Amino acid sequence: MTGDATDPRHRPAHAARYAYLGPSGTFTEAALLQVPGAAEAERLPASSVPAALSMVERGEVDAAMVPIENSVEGGVTATLDAVSVAHRLHIVAESLVPISFVLAAAAPMPLEGVRAVTTHTHAWAQVRGWAEGHLDDVEFLPSSSTAAAAGEILRGETSAQAAVCSPLVAEQLGLHVLAEGIEDVSGAVTRFVLVSRPGPVPEMTGADKTTLMIPLPQDRAGALMELLEQFSTRGVNLCRIESRPTGGGLGQYFFSIDLEGHVAESRVAEALAGVHRSAPGIRFLGSYPRADRRSQHVTDDVSDAAFAAAEQWIGGIVGGASER
Amino acid sequence: MTGDATDPRHRPAHAARYAYLGPSGTFTEAALLQVPGAAEAERLPASSVPAALSMVERGEVDAAMVPIENSVEGGVTATLDAVSVAHRLHIVAESLVPISFVLAAAAPMPLEGVRAVTTHTHAWAQVRGWAEGHLDDVEFLPSSSTAAAAGEILRGETSAQAAVCSPLVAEQLGLHVLAEGIEDVSGAVTRFVLVSRPGPVPEMTGADKTTLMIPLPQDRAGALMELLEQFSTRGVNLCRIESRPTGGGLGQYFFSIDLEGHVAESRVAEALAGVHRSAPGIRFLGSYPRADRRSQHVTDDVSDAAFAAAEQWIGGIVGGASER
Amino acid sequence: MTGDATDPRHRPAHAARYAYLGPSGTFTEAALLQVPGAAEAERLPASSVPAALSMVERGEVDAAMVPIENSVEGGVTATLDAVSVAHRLHIVAESLVPISFVLAAAAPMPLEGVRAVTTHTHAWAQVRGWAEGHLDDVEFLPSSSTAAAAGEILRGETSAQAAVCSPLVAEQLGLHVLAEGIEDVSGAVTRFVLVSRPGPVPEMTGADKTTLMIPLPQDRAGALMELLEQFSTRGVNLCRIESRPTGGGLGQYFFSIDLEGHVAESRVAEALAGVHRSAPGIRFLGSYPRADRRSQHVTDDVSDAAFAAAEQWIGGIVGGASER
Amino acid sequence: MTGDATDPRHRPAHAARYAYLGPSGTFTEAALLQVPGAAEAERLPASSVPAALSMVERGEVDAAMVPIENSVEGGVTATLDAVSVAHRLHIVAESLVPISFVLAAAAPMPLEGVRAVTTHTHAWAQVRGWAEGHLDDVEFLPSSSTAAAAGEILRGETSAQAAVCSPLVAEQLGLHVLAEGIEDVSGAVTRFVLVSRPGPVPEMTGADKTTLMIPLPQDRAGALMELLEQFSTRGVNLCRIESRPTGGGLGQYFFSIDLEGHVAESRVAEALAGVHRSAPGIRFLGSYPRADRRSQHVTDDVSDAAFAAAEQWIGGIVGGASER
Repeated sequence: MTGDATDPRHRPAHAARYAYLGPSGTFTEAALLQVPGAAEAERLPASSVPAALSMVERGEVDAAMVPIENSVEGGVTATLDAVSVAHRLHIVAESLVPISFVLAAAAPMPLEGVRAVTTHTHAWAQVRGWAEGHLDDVEFLPSSSTAAAAGEILRGETSAQAAVCSPLVAEQLGLHVLAEGIEDVSGAVTRFVLVSRPGPVPEMTGADKTTLMIPLPQDRAGALMELLEQFSTRGVNLCRIESRPTGGGLGQYFFSIDLEGHVAESRVAEALAGVHRSAPGIRFLGSYPRADRRSQHVTDDVSDAAFAAAEQWIGGIVGGASER
Repeated sequence: MTGDATDPRHRPAHAARYAYLGPSGTFTEAALLQVPGAAEAERLPASSVPAALSMVERGEVDAAMVPIENSVEGGVTATLDAVSVAHRLHIVAESLVPISFVLAAAAPMPLEGVRAVTTHTHAWAQVRGWAEGHLDDVEFLPSSSTAAAAGEILRGETSAQAAVCSPLVAEQLGLHVLAEGIEDVSGAVTRFVLVSRPGPVPEMTGADKTTLMIPLPQDRAGALMELLEQFSTRGVNLCRIESRPTGGGLGQYFFSIDLEGHVAESRVAEALAGVHRSAPGIRFLGSYPRADRRSQHVTDDVSDAAFAAAEQWIGGIVGGASER
Repeated sequence: MTGDATDPRHRPAHAARYAYLGPSGTFTEAALLQVPGAAEAERLPASSVPAALSMVERGEVDAAMVPIENSVEGGVTATLDAVSVAHRLHIVAESLVPISFVLAAAAPMPLEGVRAVTTHTHAWAQVRGWAEGHLDDVEFLPSSSTAAAAGEILRGETSAQAAVCSPLVAEQLGLHVLAEGIEDVSGAVTRFVLVSRPGPVPEMTGADKTTLMIPLPQDRAGALMELLEQFSTRGVNLCRIESRPTGGGLGQYFFSIDLEGHVAESRVAEALAGVHRSAPGIRFLGSYPRADRRSQHVTDDVSDAAFAAAEQWIGGIVGGASER
Repeated sequence: MTGDATDPRHRPAHAARYAYLGPSGTFTEAALLQVPGAAEAERLPASSVPAALSMVERGEVDAAMVPIENSVEGGVTATLDAVSVAHRLHIVAESLVPISFVLAAAAPMPLEGVRAVTTHTHAWAQVRGWAEGHLDDVEFLPSSSTAAAAGEILRGETSAQAAVCSPLVAEQLGLHVLAEGIEDVSGAVTRFVLVSRPGPVPEMTGADKTTLMIPLPQDRAGALMELLEQFSTRGVNLCRIESRPTGGGLGQYFFSIDLEGHVAESRVAEALAGVHRSAPGIRFLGSYPRADRRSQHVTDDVSDAAFAAAEQWIGGIVGGASER
């Protein structure tokens, strides 16, 4: 899925070293394990997304896997902001991990015995419906991650009787699964990105995504339209858009955008250049293979061939060719 | 700021009762206290945003104050999703609360003595820069809210020596403030909305916002453009846009949008009707006064007067008036 | 084809009287003869398009048939300008007449004997290719119309041996046809419009056209785009557009536009109202049945039903309906 | 005004030879005389616009001056069509000639004595108001040009007593001017273009125009919008647009467009290339200096510098530059 990470241009001379949002056993580590070679590589858990990204910036690791979006909660805003603000990071791969939760305890016990549950607040939000239906008057005790919650249950460091965690960490720690598939919305996936220091852009695969951060030049009707016209005029599809406050006060925004396609494709390159003209503060955060491998449908009029033919035609005119 | 909440049409016959994202002392309660009359009203803390909203839906309270966006972290996605999914809720007011944090302990102590800090993970993300600069090798212990963290410090229920919390809760509980203004980004504000059951739309003030949820009819280049054209053609400004997965699998999206203006204004009403034609699943989540009171600039060609004049002109033609 | 001209609302109490661009026997009279009842009505030839229109304005005739476009030469600009400038005229019907020419002489003669040909300059332009191929070194003598040319040949009032004219006038005058179908582009048709004083707009037939004159408010990039967005946003197709100088100096323009649809259709009415807001000088010149009877394809999202549903939805919101 | 015509790249080795729409003394010859060197060059009158263009195509002349638009009548459609259809012609210069008419006779005479007037039908249309006000029941006798009419008056070859013609031809032929400035709309100008065989495009002057012929790929709502977006997205202003039937039956159109700018400017070149992608049948008919010398205002975001900066930025990304 993330074959580009093993591209010779990316592969470090030394053995690869990765950071990820820890602790061990989180969905993020599961995402990292999808990267070819990561299972054998050194994997360093970080206490937060910014901490993981700092390890990349300082050169302590080759890349970091961090969560960026899931189909239940939308953007994980801290990650997007951190990548956008960092000037020396780009995205080189994307991973999708199905989200499923189990209720796990240190020893077998009936559900009625569970009077307090520990997990991360986001995980709790995703199983709350199940919990209200199956656990009577249960108390929620927040933990810093689902893996941490599982560990606390294992070591008896919490007053909760059970943890909501991933099937994987329950298995790794040898916990007893009291209930599985307890997520309220089944089929959810979380999107993760692999972030590294700048280098060659991963090669185009025909099923790619490009991530951008674009400060909107003016706060007026039509400014967003004009921005989007740069994409639609070249047949470039967006797959995500979020206006985000710049942190400099309400009313100042930038746009975080994922689009379909790779910067090596003419329609994408020209659209990005078009945005750059009116919003020179645009930041390119990476072109990388889509985790879902869904290749985009590119119509003839925005194919690389159409761009090349148009380029040749206009070149002939400007060059004063005798036949137009 | 939220005078509409005292509008006779909204004011319940019985004494008002409000829910808010608790526990007591959070920024959300501070937002609620801005609502005229709320200081004297019954205020019920809820354990989560969905819980607060459920209390409104079940008629246990008149309205609920919940966080929806802050200028550091963007949308609070769970709230938006919960309001969008609920079919019997709308937004009637908006509040802004400046975000500032203090480091508070049960008794005076030097910063060097603080080896572990407890707070909500979002709050920790906003003071982490300060903490790394001022606290040596400090450990972070997550709590379910900043107010809960402060309470745990007061009652000695945590191994942390200090809590990151709001100035208000520190004062309410009588904690000692070790450092104040410790947020990494100053000037941040959090946006809250007051949600109630359907009723008359709050009256237009000239400085209003309207919130919508729009399922995108088709996943193709230009679909978003066509949607936005419905707004730009009528001079309607957007102040927030987020594409959000529907939860039904990656690739299916709806758009969460805030626009400038009130549904009672012709340009807004016609734009909404225009969207409705191609996206009949559009949901109107409320028109309400902007908390920042910033009135929009409406150009002449999209004023209510211009709409009325155009209406009269076209009516004369269709009606077969002799002079056109 | 032009059944609306017989609509009781249009039919004058007295016997109908029509003007047309004369003299007798022109394609314009042929167009007029398509109007039900015109064959029996009084038909007055006018010496020019403005003269014919003046007869309508002064009430001397009920309506006038004038040429407005043909598929070889595009807009007949004088007509468009005259209708646009007149404040008391509108278009109530459209006619199409196939354009075919014959070469006619007073008596039978070989083509080699034709050393000079008379006709209208526009007609000459349409047969010049044939003339160069079949007539040796022929001289062209301009006449004020093809019918006038035929008359001059009949009466020997010209030094030309033959006239280029319509098959009809050759037959009417008893001229000998030396060659027929001599037009360089076969299949050409000329479009004519029937112009009358203001009255009820002809009823919608489902295959209608609407003609507008729109002064462009500003001479800048995007002004035309914004104008056209008013149409495209409501799915309204244009079938003709021409920028035309206002006569007040180069650089000032208005747009002459034909669109598909009738002002009684919601999408057309709302588009016209939308244009009116930013260009209140817009002039409605008529909605009338298309001569080619080609009915337009109206997509669901811009059907009258979709407009009505959207109207009802937004009305429910503004009216404070409890269910949205 | 038309200095490019003397550009060494255009100047023929032999003495220049020009065709123009004759006969001698027309406004078209006046336009030609504005071309540097044309006064001394051989000037050949042609009987029609297509005849003049044929002389260019066959190499009998270096270039031809033909009328293309005037501020009273809009496009002179035959010229546009002829240039569009010809595959070996392009426009290298533009001339503007103020249109003013005189009433001229062979000898002095009172206006009451003028019972018939001869001139070209277009000229008659432009003085008809004056004629109706000053000449009692005057008859109009069409001539093939204003100059021909003047010649006929001089030689007594017409039953008219006076001709409507240009001041110049009246002076050249020694006619008596009975009235001057008789045009109904003063300040009118006619636009002429100088057409030659393909060669280097005239150099950019900063106040240029580009003429295009664009077949519309599809007859549907939005097709024209998408075409125009290619211009508006790059800040390219249109100064003329006309939809024109292709001659292949009603309902098939191409667009004749003049835009502000020169194909050597990045924004124009990229817009043309953008149109070429979806309408590869686009024809470039020339970039040439504007006769009115009005330089366009190019905003920063579409300047050549902005295009170059964007190009460099995107090149750095695609090239794998380490800093983005």
